[in-house]
Amino acid sequence: MFEKVCIVGCGLIGSSIARAIRKKNLSNKIVSSNRSDLVNKKVIELKIVDDSNSDTKKMAEGSDLVIIATPLSSYEDVILKLKDSLKNGSILTDVGSVKENIIGLIEKNIPKNVSWISSHPIAGTEESGPESGFSELFENRWCILTPSKKVNEKDIKLLENFWKKMGSKVDIMDAKQHDYVLSITSHIPHLIAYNIVNTTLNIQDKKESDIVKYSAGGLRDFTRIAASNPIMWRDVFIHNKKNTSSMIDDFIANLEDLKKAIENEDGKKLEEIFKKTKKIRKEIVKAGQDVGKPDFGRK
Amino acid sequence: MFEKVCIVGCGLIGSSIARAIRKKNLSNKIVSSNRSDLVNKKVIELKIVDDSNSDTKKMAEGSDLVIIATPLSSYEDVILKLKDSLKNGSILTDVGSVKENIIGLIEKNIPKNVSWISSHPIAGTEESGPESGFSELFENRWCILTPSKKVNEKDIKLLENFWKKMGSKVDIMDAKQHDYVLSITSHIPHLIAYNIVNTTLNIQDKKESDIVKYSAGGLRDFTRIAASNPIMWRDVFIHNKKNTSSMIDDFIANLEDLKKAIENEDGKKLEEIFKKTKKIRKEIVKAGQDVGKPDFGRK
Repeated sequence: MFEKVCIVGCGLIGSSIARAIRKKNLSNKIVSSNRSDLVNKKVIELKIVDDSNSDTKKMAEGSDLVIIATPLSSYEDVILKLKDSLKNGSILTDVGSVKENIIGLIEKNIPKNVSWISSHPIAGTEESGPESGFSELFENRWCILTPSKKVNEKDIKLLENFWKKMGSKVDIMDAKQHDYVLSITSHIPHLIAYNIVNTTLNIQDKKESDIVKYSAGGLRDFTRIAASNPIMWRDVFIHNKKNTSSMIDDFIANLEDLKKAIENEDGKKLEEIFKKTKKIRKEIVKAGQDVGKPDFGRK
Repeated sequence: MFEKVCIVGCGLIGSSIARAIRKKNLSNKIVSSNRSDLVNKKVIELKIVDDSNSDTKKMAEGSDLVIIATPLSSYEDVILKLKDSLKNGSILTDVGSVKENIIGLIEKNIPKNVSWISSHPIAGTEESGPESGFSELFENRWCILTPSKKVNEKDIKLLENFWKKMGSKVDIMDAKQHDYVLSITSHIPHLIAYNIVNTTLNIQDKKESDIVKYSAGGLRDFTRIAASNPIMWRDVFIHNKKNTSSMIDDFIANLEDLKKAIENEDGKKLEEIFKKTKKIRKEIVKAGQDVGKPDFGRK
């Protein structure tokens, strides 16, 4: 499919992409660039890539596809290093969780004959780093493409096929809509998980053992999400701050409403709300976006 | 261990207890009482119990151990039906998630020579009903006992051993402390999960398909908890309303704080909080209260 692919940033997502490319034989050569030489050494050792070096410019040279897989706060630095080595007619993409304020940043820094098509694979786990990746990460997950307006259809199709070969289903969405929808389905859930675990820790500083012991009552599910990459999520919330902030307001207004119903012992209202939320679970399982087994099938 | 055990309410928890008793051979006879005749028929059909009938008084007669496993709002009704049939020297327990305001209610309605020792097994799934139960539900989970002050040590030891044979670890806790700790580790997480799914549904009424499609970004974990039994949870929040309400206030204050940090692009503060919350996950896994595999090991 490609002669050479360069991945900038081999964390959970970047290293999973490299593994999937290799497994599915989608490129003759796979290289990566990481700031840390330990990571560059590690990904070569793990045989995830053919070559890896902190010299981003050198690594990217001659690539047909360059994938930025760093935290959002590194994008500016990365694109300044990349821009002079991007090959004529190549495709540039990323895997970031926010689009609106990065699309322009990249666009203004790249040559005209490079197709900049932003990607967002909706996949991940709570683990980080090159060792946590695996080639099946994208299977049966959605990947959203947000192409720059100037890009030709042929390259969009090519990148779409690339993600499909990784096992994903592909949607096209504009940046504004993407940032809104994802703030609901991903950003706010992560923020809420961080907040509940943090609230718990603040209250119980001297009783951590009680939290751990009785966490199976519900809290443990939140601690999984709240164990996600802190740097990545710090950047997501700041880069999508308008949507995040307005969604927090909605969330708090609804929570105040629930609080009032509890204080008034308004069982009917509580029951109505709790019954409504049950339905969506069934649809998520039916759509193959989660396993249907109780407790996620964990033992 | 017992000659006869009676379970009032064969839902997820009640039917799991019946299954575990049978599997581990802890009683010669197991009976249950359910309001619904369909459930009474079902549990006999499933061979979970030897007999089952809506006549609670009749079913409980002669039992050495009676377990109330109904929603909290039914306790008053159940205890009025039970009180005249409780056997001299028998043990009465329950599996409810709130203690302080039910301990007294039961105590004032039962004969003096019945040992009332409240239980709370910290276990469950998002499913409900007699068919969803399984005998391993309590394995490696904590069970908290809250004995009435009048109860003799021998009976506490007996009930403790009963839960240990079910596979649980046992703690003794007073009602006030129980309701406080559980509001943190269980009640508030459930309320927050209901609230985030409800907020999502309110915003996206016309875009349910987008929520479902992109739920793997984080939301799907919350939908699992928000699919839990609506009646049970309605009762929990109302019965523990003082703790719930004060914890909501803490949660909102912390969320407002996070919102401010996001609006001010205070990356340092966000990173600090997000790093702190990571630690607790490791301890929960180490304590055997969750699986250590990424994504709960789901495929």
